[in-house]
Amino acid sequence: MPINPNADIEITAFRWVPEFAQGVVRDLRARWALEEAGLDYRVRLLDQQRPPKYLKEQPFDQVPCFRDDSVQIFETGAIVQYIGKKSEALLPRDPQGKYRAIQWTYAALNSVEPAVINLLLIDVFFTNEEWAKMRRPGAADFARLKLRRVSEWLGDRQWLEGDRFTIGDLVMITTLRFLRHTDMVAEFPNLAAFLQRGEARPAFQQALSDQLATFREHQPEGVAA
Amino acid sequence: MPINPNADIEITAFRWVPEFAQGVVRDLRARWALEEAGLDYRVRLLDQQRPPKYLKEQPFDQVPCFRDDSVQIFETGAIVQYIGKKSEALLPRDPQGKYRAIQWTYAALNSVEPAVINLLLIDVFFTNEEWAKMRRPGAADFARLKLRRVSEWLGDRQWLEGDRFTIGDLVMITTLRFLRHTDMVAEFPNLAAFLQRGEARPAFQQALSDQLATFREHQPEGVAA
Repeated sequence: MPINPNADIEITAFRWVPEFAQGVVRDLRARWALEEAGLDYRVRLLDQQRPPKYLKEQPFDQVPCFRDDSVQIFETGAIVQYIGKKSEALLPRDPQGKYRAIQWTYAALNSVEPAVINLLLIDVFFTNEEWAKMRRPGAADFARLKLRRVSEWLGDRQWLEGDRFTIGDLVMITTLRFLRHTDMVAEFPNLAAFLQRGEARPAFQQALSDQLATFREHQPEGVAA
Repeated sequence: MPINPNADIEITAFRWVPEFAQGVVRDLRARWALEEAGLDYRVRLLDQQRPPKYLKEQPFDQVPCFRDDSVQIFETGAIVQYIGKKSEALLPRDPQGKYRAIQWTYAALNSVEPAVINLLLIDVFFTNEEWAKMRRPGAADFARLKLRRVSEWLGDRQWLEGDRFTIGDLVMITTLRFLRHTDMVAEFPNLAAFLQRGEARPAFQQALSDQLATFREHQPEGVAA
């Protein structure tokens, strides 16, 4: 869907972020879900320095927030689940299918992402800290263990619950993308193929392209792209 | 509710865990939600060394799993949300109330718990590691920042969204309990009072008492209680 300034749905996103974050900022999850669901949306852009009142909308000072005529919410897990509620393409309607998808959304965010983000922070923010150098092997092993668990579950399934793509896959795939600065996902060929299948979806490509276009448009002068 | 060996609902839990984990193992969340909802349940106990086939049920080798006549799921976030679906006492029915509660469930698990568990691991598992000693002040500050965000949001509200307790409060309160080995929550008086209000609920007390009773019953010989 084209981004539509008159759409009912609004999400927040950053005007610009440094290169290491481009293509993984969490509004990507909301954009991707909206594209899969065929819902148009408008974007409210924020500077890296958010106004203090933004905390009233998003107590953790992050993006995205989401609003439409019915709800005003934050947290990508809740947002993609709400979008899933509007579109069976993302969230099955039978209880088992629905809650298995929701379960994988929580699993990505609580059982996988913390280990992945921990490694990303060590590699990006704390690279020069002595503790980070000492901790990295253990942190990498812990992230690898989480990938192994997902890989073993996945086996030769197309998606986490079989041949049907859900919000659980969407959130897991965007979680794996936080490791793009490493070769770790490639150590698990079925997981690498799962990631590629997700990224090949037209809805993902559109969402990514729209996030990156905003950053290109607002590239600060004197900062390398 | 009494635990009922013939109940439709089954959760998994550990037969016994070391003292530092007693009272915070994640089946506490499922038990508490079931007590609030007035649903009886049976418990399938697992040894610390789970059989390999348990990974088919719970790919991350954790507790709890949940099953009833309709679903078989894991991840405490998904489980409490499913229980909430069965009981308006835990999850409002209007879209805004419902998704605000779901949003706080995700917030507790993705925006707060990772920082809290990171500190817990440093204090409990990695105490003697050189990197952990160097990292602890920064990790404590990061956990403290998350607490401050929740405290500032909470203000003088009784619960996260006002005067109605939801699954969001339940998961946030059990997340704060992972810091019970520190005085950190007490630095934020409104957060400490919120935690106490949660723990004072009869449903919480019953859930905690049931988890601890199992550990007492299966206390290994020669291990101090």
